[in-house]
Amino acid sequence: LTLAGATALDLCLSERELSQLARTGSGSASRSIPGGFVEWRAGTDHESSFATSIAGPEHWDLVDYVVLVSGQHKVVGSTSGHQLAGTSPLQAARVADADRRLELCRKALLERDFPVLAEIVEQDSNLMHSVMMTSRPPLYYWEPGTMEIINAVREWREHGLQVCFTIDAGPNVHVLCPGSDAEAVKRRLTSLANIKSILKCTPGGPAWLLEPEISGV
Amino acid sequence: LTLAGATALDLCLSERELSQLARTGSGSASRSIPGGFVEWRAGTDHESSFATSIAGPEHWDLVDYVVLVSGQHKVVGSTSGHQLAGTSPLQAARVADADRRLELCRKALLERDFPVLAEIVEQDSNLMHSVMMTSRPPLYYWEPGTMEIINAVREWREHGLQVCFTIDAGPNVHVLCPGSDAEAVKRRLTSLANIKSILKCTPGGPAWLLEPEISGV
Repeated sequence: LTLAGATALDLCLSERELSQLARTGSGSASRSIPGGFVEWRAGTDHESSFATSIAGPEHWDLVDYVVLVSGQHKVVGSTSGHQLAGTSPLQAARVADADRRLELCRKALLERDFPVLAEIVEQDSNLMHSVMMTSRPPLYYWEPGTMEIINAVREWREHGLQVCFTIDAGPNVHVLCPGSDAEAVKRRLTSLANIKSILKCTPGGPAWLLEPEISGV
Repeated sequence: LTLAGATALDLCLSERELSQLARTGSGSASRSIPGGFVEWRAGTDHESSFATSIAGPEHWDLVDYVVLVSGQHKVVGSTSGHQLAGTSPLQAARVADADRRLELCRKALLERDFPVLAEIVEQDSNLMHSVMMTSRPPLYYWEPGTMEIINAVREWREHGLQVCFTIDAGPNVHVLCPGSDAEAVKRRLTSLANIKSILKCTPGGPAWLLEPEISGV
């Protein structure tokens, strides 16, 4: 969207400028501009807060299954979660620990170390949901189906499969695994009780513009 | 058990001494000696760590439904949880906030203020599970059925029912409510999908000895 808008306005922006611009719409959007594995540098102001690619999409054959769970009864936007985070007694500790997690995650990605990636990705996800479930008022995003996937993924990993989970501000679960384990993971996911659908994603290139479609009249 | 042992050994211990003794077996057991609503004073050593009653059982007509959820696949003892807590980036913040929660909880109990009790009881429970789910290795006690009850209880409360939840080191849920709402809560609980059974508890008196049963030969 940022790229489309900038192009429509005839702006010629660098990747860094596009990432900065995208950030003003939604923080996480800043990460969608560069390609491959991307790190969002927090920075201290608009100039210094943007995302860069730390490895190309071909660096690691990882699959992200986005698993939509059934029985979702309420949608809460992520912005309200950001605003409430400070009311949790845990938020300061989560933020203070962020650099450690970022460093571990970056290192695991660059070294293609799945066990380390799995541990830190799941801990980071749980830290975010811990803050939300202890804020005032609390925010609960998990559904029974979310919990089913969390427990199943951990059990599969104990039995040797390379797989881990991470959860956004919503009940759906991102189930990550190397391409080599993707089919086995997919098969197990479809056997769970509370699954609505599964989308498969892989590392992609940088943001690009689609050619306008020409339709017959 | 503490009382039975002390009696068998012909020890004549005060309530405080019994509570101290029980604590050495299991911390929470120290709270089972006095009657009614009980506070465990943390203290700094064996002498100063014991529980006392802050209100008799008749003070507040509260019901605790212990809801056993189905699909429990793993049992983890609470002692291992205590030992792991320090590995969570959140434990220090949880402990630092404990006095605030204890004070709110005591006040809510003494004033029979259910809305305040509900908020602090649920936050305290979530804080404990947050620490466990972010320790290394993490401990997950929740099952899909646990999550179903959490979300249902919060929804019922939004619709006017006085009800809240708290969860021990296990997947089962304590659903608390005033006696006046107990029947309505019970009816709703039995309609949930992942419930195995429901036990009803109410505030009780202090620990006492059962008379030995005389059985025919």
